[in-house]
Amino acid sequence: MQWTVYLSGEIHTDWRQQLMNGCEARNLPVSFTSAVTDHEASDSAGDVLGKAENQFWRDHRSAKVNAIRIRTLISNCDLAVVRFGEQYKQWNAAFDAGFCAALDVPYITLHDESIVHPLKEVDAAAMAWATTPEQVVEILEYVTSQQ
Amino acid sequence: MQWTVYLSGEIHTDWRQQLMNGCEARNLPVSFTSAVTDHEASDSAGDVLGKAENQFWRDHRSAKVNAIRIRTLISNCDLAVVRFGEQYKQWNAAFDAGFCAALDVPYITLHDESIVHPLKEVDAAAMAWATTPEQVVEILEYVTSQQ
Amino acid sequence: MQWTVYLSGEIHTDWRQQLMNGCEARNLPVSFTSAVTDHEASDSAGDVLGKAENQFWRDHRSAKVNAIRIRTLISNCDLAVVRFGEQYKQWNAAFDAGFCAALDVPYITLHDESIVHPLKEVDAAAMAWATTPEQVVEILEYVTSQQ
Amino acid sequence: MQWTVYLSGEIHTDWRQQLMNGCEARNLPVSFTSAVTDHEASDSAGDVLGKAENQFWRDHRSAKVNAIRIRTLISNCDLAVVRFGEQYKQWNAAFDAGFCAALDVPYITLHDESIVHPLKEVDAAAMAWATTPEQVVEILEYVTSQQ
Amino acid sequence: MQWTVYLSGEIHTDWRQQLMNGCEARNLPVSFTSAVTDHEASDSAGDVLGKAENQFWRDHRSAKVNAIRIRTLISNCDLAVVRFGEQYKQWNAAFDAGFCAALDVPYITLHDESIVHPLKEVDAAAMAWATTPEQVVEILEYVTSQQ
Amino acid sequence: MQWTVYLSGEIHTDWRQQLMNGCEARNLPVSFTSAVTDHEASDSAGDVLGKAENQFWRDHRSAKVNAIRIRTLISNCDLAVVRFGEQYKQWNAAFDAGFCAALDVPYITLHDESIVHPLKEVDAAAMAWATTPEQVVEILEYVTSQQ
Amino acid sequence: MQWTVYLSGEIHTDWRQQLMNGCEARNLPVSFTSAVTDHEASDSAGDVLGKAENQFWRDHRSAKVNAIRIRTLISNCDLAVVRFGEQYKQWNAAFDAGFCAALDVPYITLHDESIVHPLKEVDAAAMAWATTPEQVVEILEYVTSQQ
Amino acid sequence: MQWTVYLSGEIHTDWRQQLMNGCEARNLPVSFTSAVTDHEASDSAGDVLGKAENQFWRDHRSAKVNAIRIRTLISNCDLAVVRFGEQYKQWNAAFDAGFCAALDVPYITLHDESIVHPLKEVDAAAMAWATTPEQVVEILEYVTSQQ
Repeated sequence: MQWTVYLSGEIHTDWRQQLMNGCEARNLPVSFTSAVTDHEASDSAGDVLGKAENQFWRDHRSAKVNAIRIRTLISNCDLAVVRFGEQYKQWNAAFDAGFCAALDVPYITLHDESIVHPLKEVDAAAMAWATTPEQVVEILEYVTSQQ
Repeated sequence: MQWTVYLSGEIHTDWRQQLMNGCEARNLPVSFTSAVTDHEASDSAGDVLGKAENQFWRDHRSAKVNAIRIRTLISNCDLAVVRFGEQYKQWNAAFDAGFCAALDVPYITLHDESIVHPLKEVDAAAMAWATTPEQVVEILEYVTSQQ
Repeated sequence: MQWTVYLSGEIHTDWRQQLMNGCEARNLPVSFTSAVTDHEASDSAGDVLGKAENQFWRDHRSAKVNAIRIRTLISNCDLAVVRFGEQYKQWNAAFDAGFCAALDVPYITLHDESIVHPLKEVDAAAMAWATTPEQVVEILEYVTSQQ
Repeated sequence: MQWTVYLSGEIHTDWRQQLMNGCEARNLPVSFTSAVTDHEASDSAGDVLGKAENQFWRDHRSAKVNAIRIRTLISNCDLAVVRFGEQYKQWNAAFDAGFCAALDVPYITLHDESIVHPLKEVDAAAMAWATTPEQVVEILEYVTSQQ
Repeated sequence: MQWTVYLSGEIHTDWRQQLMNGCEARNLPVSFTSAVTDHEASDSAGDVLGKAENQFWRDHRSAKVNAIRIRTLISNCDLAVVRFGEQYKQWNAAFDAGFCAALDVPYITLHDESIVHPLKEVDAAAMAWATTPEQVVEILEYVTSQQ
Repeated sequence: MQWTVYLSGEIHTDWRQQLMNGCEARNLPVSFTSAVTDHEASDSAGDVLGKAENQFWRDHRSAKVNAIRIRTLISNCDLAVVRFGEQYKQWNAAFDAGFCAALDVPYITLHDESIVHPLKEVDAAAMAWATTPEQVVEILEYVTSQQ
Repeated sequence: MQWTVYLSGEIHTDWRQQLMNGCEARNLPVSFTSAVTDHEASDSAGDVLGKAENQFWRDHRSAKVNAIRIRTLISNCDLAVVRFGEQYKQWNAAFDAGFCAALDVPYITLHDESIVHPLKEVDAAAMAWATTPEQVVEILEYVTSQQ
Repeated sequence: MQWTVYLSGEIHTDWRQQLMNGCEARNLPVSFTSAVTDHEASDSAGDVLGKAENQFWRDHRSAKVNAIRIRTLISNCDLAVVRFGEQYKQWNAAFDAGFCAALDVPYITLHDESIVHPLKEVDAAAMAWATTPEQVVEILEYVTSQQ
């Protein structure tokens, strides 16, 4: 079985790349999907549909275009990894986690110990909490390949 | 029809009370439910089950006890109002919003204009964005009582 | 058992009233629900949330506020009656019918013979096609009260 | 991932062809499905099952045969595009949109600005509103291929 | 808890009455629902909607009107009892059983030993097979009232 | 798209073969699935699990083994064809039809005009009624291959 | 809101009574449901349907009659408490827990520390693990009544 | 059609291997999936995520990592075989059976006659009870390959 893993959250560090490299190095049967991670492109995803009336509606239109992709990919994945970094609000990552929880899509959180308390509800619904991409790679190896 | 409205998010201001007062003043057919909003009580919800091994597991145990209440109430409500304040991470509010979205429970967001951009995914899946409790009361009056 | 019947579609004739009167006259165990049928109120349902940027977003905001009510009431009803009149596009009525069909909510269409052809897909998924409110009343009497 | 896009609505202009050509020119990983778009063939889809008793039952029988195809394809698609033209009632397109909305199948509407008001409920449940096939092609490129 | 029991199948003997009498005599917390059991009324349920084109469409129209009632009541019941008699095809009873099975509505079959073999698929999905109404009453007493 | 069609019902005539030959002759993109149609084999499907205590339990055990296959194949098909012949009770065919109806699996009935009345509930939930395998082949060609 | 709590598992100690007494003493808005807990009655639940062919079929028939009650009550409850004692296999309790997990019915396990290891999968899907009925009462008070 | 069969339960005998060998010898179109069956590896599945605070939390963390695999594989299988041996509590096997039952995943139990009574609820929801792997192989041959 080929596993599909959706990568949600932080876009300002290279955790996605580390995770993909780690799985590739171990030759795991895992494919990755993700929202668009180019910040500019994501914010302007709906601009082709018309000029911005104001910030709210510009964001609204782009967020809905992005949602076409995000919801389809989350609904199709076998597992999600949701990453919370040190900076920014990252409400979209928590939103994705809630979405997974309601759909019974299992997910792993990836974040530092310093934000354990504000993430307690998100972690409580997760299947695991990891602090490094390497730990996630080990979990993926176990889940997909251990006899 | 009596409507049940779940109130999610910020617990450090009196927005819940304002909203309930407004609905009561107009005599609307609305009942309200909510997570436990006493911060201390919420954080120690699981303490009766054993002494804390460390911060993560204490939070974990309490968050799961709270989830018994939260998920049941969200699944039973007709509408949710999700409030984001100026302070704190409030990832649980975004998590609730994602949970509602996946279950097709309609929700209204309540937050200032200053945080429109980081909330764009949460707002994009909402049925409305309000900035004051009074606006939410007016929407509730319209939805539940307008002929 | 008390039956809940959702009335969808045309708002410019008194078919709702005829139907309700007919059921009341026969003392049927039926309650009725409906979208807001005051055209002005419906179009301005979202205006309390901000001034209109343009026609599209004004309509968008109001339509979503109305959807809070419509989707909840359709999801809670036992049967819907969807009325198509001679005038106007009435795409919302056809939209409601599609929504019912996908949720397995049974519905009856109410329209003249002159528009049988363009309504063929909507009628094909309906449980019955009636041409007068009185026929619907008779069906409701049979469904709810015949031994 | 190969995306499957269902094309619903107007059959009297070449918007389907424009959209398919545009995606092919950009080599997008998209497959298209659709109801039968040959008007004659569609209206007579059920004639093989018996001679027509009257217009209603002929339409009924054909619409149900068409529904075998339509519902299966909508249920299997990742995204729908629903086109409303200037002419005809097009209630089937609005019906398809309602069906998608209830099944959480994301859809994009494609129509001119002149019919924004009567389509407000249909647009409110859509993920995007486009006015030209080329805009839809750009959205599809973004959704399926942007990194 | 008040239990709702749907009674499906044979309409030419008094098994429904025996069952209801038995439950009443024991004062069980059970309410009963059923399709229309007046054969004439059932066959003409759709006649109010128009004159019959031929036997097939008359039956079709009436069967759909009856289905409004049947599906709603089956979906709302806690348990169904499906009765097969000696005579007639009774395909509607087997259809109801299949419908229950797919919706995870538990059902009890009620029939003589002589038709065990042709009913094997229907019995295999049932929670119990009884040969007399009195046995069903005893099961109902146990299920609803035993401590 | 390759369509999967489940063939339910009568096993004493060659309608399955006619239907498969017809589709093969037209080179349609259709695969067929079916319950075991060897009567002997079907009745003894559970005998490997133990000797028969009596007729009821032998049938019960075999019917459940057959149900493993039937339910999986029905749940996986795109369309079912349900055949009723002149002889036998054929309650399993009606049961399959009810199962399809509840799961929103579209189905076509195939039977003579002489049994229209007892099959009215089964036909009312079908997408089409055919009287010959050739008609079904034509419907399949239309549904799967018409542009 | 009145909460319905299903009590599953061990029937040889008085934990149910302790739990109910504790909730009554605190006047909590909780109703309790349960399988039949009279061992004799439960084992003979199906005997009214015929004499036992052998142990397997007697158990089978009784277990299915019991399942009518158990599945209905589990599907209708807001929360389950699953108790594992020192003795017996108690596979039915673990079966109920798996059933709850798949239906997203939250449950609390109640068992001693000595059997933590063999119950790890059951506990991992639970919302809480308690060792005494009094702890469960405290959780119920918090969940149902804390502001 | 290739069938996917999930093998649940006992890990201390070679029943999985016997079953796989038997299917391979008959060249059946069956693929097998399973939880990790290396006891050591399974118990330490979560150790990579942190050092054990105590037995409960170590088990908890590992059981959740294992659940990522188990739930995905059960949800994706066509049939499960659940094996109960003579030793150990095997509550996870009964939990898997309950999970299957609630999801309508058919399953076969595999156990000796000596434990028929404590397994009556688990067997009552199963499609078959076998006592040897060879019987299961025969059932699989019948289900997947009999014409």
